Amino acid sequence: MGILPGLSEERTDYGATQKVIEEISQRFGDRLTVARSVRERFGKDESFHPSVPPDAVVTVQSTEEVRDVVQSCAQHRVPVIAYGTGTALEGHVAALHGGICINLQEMKEVVAVHAEDLDVVVQPGVTRKQLNHYLRDTGLFFPIDPGADASLGGMAACRASGTNAVKYGTMRENVLALTVVLADGKVIKTSKRARKSAAGYDLTRLFVGSEGTLGIITEITLRLYGVPESIIAAVCVFPDVSSAVDTVIETIQYGVPVARIELMDDRMIQAINDYSGTNLDIAPTIFLEFHGTVEYAREQSEIVQQIAVENSGSNFNWTANSEERAKLWQARHDAAYACKALRPNGTIWATDVCVPISRLADCISETRQDIKESNIIAPIVGHVGDGNFHLTLVVDHNDRGEQARAEALHERMVMRALSMEGTCTGEHGIGHGKINFLLAEHGRDVVSVMQAIKQTLDPHNIMNPGKIVRR
Amino acid sequence: MGILPGLSEERTDYGATQKVIEEISQRFGDRLTVARSVRERFGKDESFHPSVPPDAVVTVQSTEEVRDVVQSCAQHRVPVIAYGTGTALEGHVAALHGGICINLQEMKEVVAVHAEDLDVVVQPGVTRKQLNHYLRDTGLFFPIDPGADASLGGMAACRASGTNAVKYGTMRENVLALTVVLADGKVIKTSKRARKSAAGYDLTRLFVGSEGTLGIITEITLRLYGVPESIIAAVCVFPDVSSAVDTVIETIQYGVPVARIELMDDRMIQAINDYSGTNLDIAPTIFLEFHGTVEYAREQSEIVQQIAVENSGSNFNWTANSEERAKLWQARHDAAYACKALRPNGTIWATDVCVPISRLADCISETRQDIKESNIIAPIVGHVGDGNFHLTLVVDHNDRGEQARAEALHERMVMRALSMEGTCTGEHGIGHGKINFLLAEHGRDVVSVMQAIKQTLDPHNIMNPGKIVRR
Repeated sequence: MGILPGLSEERTDYGATQKVIEEISQRFGDRLTVARSVRERFGKDESFHPSVPPDAVVTVQSTEEVRDVVQSCAQHRVPVIAYGTGTALEGHVAALHGGICINLQEMKEVVAVHAEDLDVVVQPGVTRKQLNHYLRDTGLFFPIDPGADASLGGMAACRASGTNAVKYGTMRENVLALTVVLADGKVIKTSKRARKSAAGYDLTRLFVGSEGTLGIITEITLRLYGVPESIIAAVCVFPDVSSAVDTVIETIQYGVPVARIELMDDRMIQAINDYSGTNLDIAPTIFLEFHGTVEYAREQSEIVQQIAVENSGSNFNWTANSEERAKLWQARHDAAYACKALRPNGTIWATDVCVPISRLADCISETRQDIKESNIIAPIVGHVGDGNFHLTLVVDHNDRGEQARAEALHERMVMRALSMEGTCTGEHGIGHGKINFLLAEHGRDVVSVMQAIKQTLDPHNIMNPGKIVRR
Repeated sequence: MGILPGLSEERTDYGATQKVIEEISQRFGDRLTVARSVRERFGKDESFHPSVPPDAVVTVQSTEEVRDVVQSCAQHRVPVIAYGTGTALEGHVAALHGGICINLQEMKEVVAVHAEDLDVVVQPGVTRKQLNHYLRDTGLFFPIDPGADASLGGMAACRASGTNAVKYGTMRENVLALTVVLADGKVIKTSKRARKSAAGYDLTRLFVGSEGTLGIITEITLRLYGVPESIIAAVCVFPDVSSAVDTVIETIQYGVPVARIELMDDRMIQAINDYSGTNLDIAPTIFLEFHGTVEYAREQSEIVQQIAVENSGSNFNWTANSEERAKLWQARHDAAYACKALRPNGTIWATDVCVPISRLADCISETRQDIKESNIIAPIVGHVGDGNFHLTLVVDHNDRGEQARAEALHERMVMRALSMEGTCTGEHGIGHGKINFLLAEHGRDVVSVMQAIKQTLDPHNIMNPGKIVRR
């Protein structure tokens, strides 16, 4: 299928883009730039996908400014690409058709905290860490943690999740309402601030995960949670991946509301030991976190320890001390760096799939066997409570043979997940990197419905064109 | 605004309907009927909205049969209305434009239970009680409980929720995937069975809550939960509604994962005492339920008792005994009957709104004052953990003055909720009864987006026309 299917699409007429730049240049002054170095940076995310620079980058400060840029682009049929922090992984910000990049990083106001309602209204450029820092004296926090310190607008647009989705859900469950600038420049608010509603089509969920292809998110209302009275972290090793996964399945079935439950395979643990100088047992390992009252967090930990022991788990270590907790989790947090360090000249290719949890052990085992046979370096880490796992391929892109083997391995992993009733991406999204897998997953009729919705809301295909669906 | 705005819409050409009936009559035999009494029944839900009978009712047994009926209707541009149990409350099944009612009650197979994955695949005619009966030996259950023993297809179509949404979410959070027959007869599956996915637009959530206006749901994959080890029920009375609501707010903020938290006002308690012969204190009362391990359910109960006492709550009674629990909850379950009994000749008009919880006490207090001034009988019961409450107006529809006062009271309540950043319906849906309030809530631009989606997926307006949006 190839990894860069979107790049064959044609770019927009450059003259039209110039008209937009002329129209908005006076208003934005030096917040509008066509400098090559800046455009290069804004055309690239954290993935291996190459930069495809926009024709200009404009830094906006309000919904009205976004609206005005979009209106100008709509008039001249010029693409618009929203940019948060550039931490996406499937080429989401690549300006495949050229056009204007709207940089939302200066829209970073926390508009309102409603402590009694456990919600907050933020501008899209606020990152999750900035939000939690802002909330530090309120006793509340926003739990969704995709690893990167992503912007909340980007997280909503990409339906992000991460380590503690198993307890708190993903952005799908935690966005209450969105302000969106549509392709014609109209500004809508998708929902009121009530916790639930049965009033019409769920436009909030339609825009969550739409990756900027249906509109640009300029304000987000998010659910918040009380900071738990007690947080316990734990770690446990297993003789094989199946035993670890069985422990996860039984934990979830038992109803233990585990806050995080992460698996790393022995290859990943080895990489972390090498990188961090730690001395972890080289074995499939799960890292856990329990949130609750002091009593209940301890009870959860004890229940899971018992389940783990029954599944041949050993060296179950737990702590409620926050420094020790940070130390215990350091290994998990080092995973990405450890992979990079495996091969200084290698390129990191991070990808993810998600399967029903009953198939997780099979999917991981078969994939590990495939990695071995493919002779590719690719440690595994997974948000296993959701059936979601990541492969971090470390590839020398200059070695054509290796590159081809990596692509084939990747494709087999995705197709394996699909054959197990899974999805081609649990949390990274489609961008242009997985656009063919979207079709493989859903089939022509479903993708046609998505295309029809795209056509309706963005008839001139100006909103982040070439992502999710082709036209 | 009036309560029957949809009824002014024009009906479809009767000749076209006859063609559909001819086309499908041989295949369906006596599963197709045009008998007036049957049509009358299938044109009416449990609300006060009058029956608007379809031209025929066809009882289907498979997705393929639904597809064939829809294809015939699509060809002749004849409306199709899906029917589950008829327990909706806003005229959802009224055949405003005539057409064919597809009765899904015989599609009641539990297709697959995936115990390890905590999910189940069901046909749309299975009711929630039937599902839980089926699951009784698995240690699993499906929690969503809208009161009525509704079909799961109807619950998905109407984004149902109910008493324990505060812990388990609504149908929005608990549907993993849907099989849907589209307006052109194509059959799609909206998602795979993975717990989470970032693969494209969230079509599952688009169909959840679409009330049969975008397609007909013929299979549903639902999340399941382990039956809790311990269930504790509790009841507590308060001097006023504000104290009760403050208790709810603090409970949620504390992070107590209360499974149910229901408020009844003194008027409702009085009605229940009269109906059931109970001897409950005539005061604002909250009913609670805690799910968890034995230790943790008790701890939750103790925490909430303490919060309640600090808010002037008294007579906090709790029990872990299942018979006593049933008795404690009987009052809540009797609420609907108790309202009916208040006035044997009155018509019950059940309506709901949902507001941010910080505004709940104000919204209820102002509404109670308004009820009093309007001289209308209208007890209040609420799923207060979500900010959702119900007004049960008991009205003599033959008394025009009273009817007008009830309508005005209803409209003021909805507009009050909207002014408090709430929604015109937390769980009953729009149907045709609240179609004008949808516009009041979202405004023209948002409703236009909904209309555009409707137009795209149902260009000939045959799927339950006249509901949610007008064309």
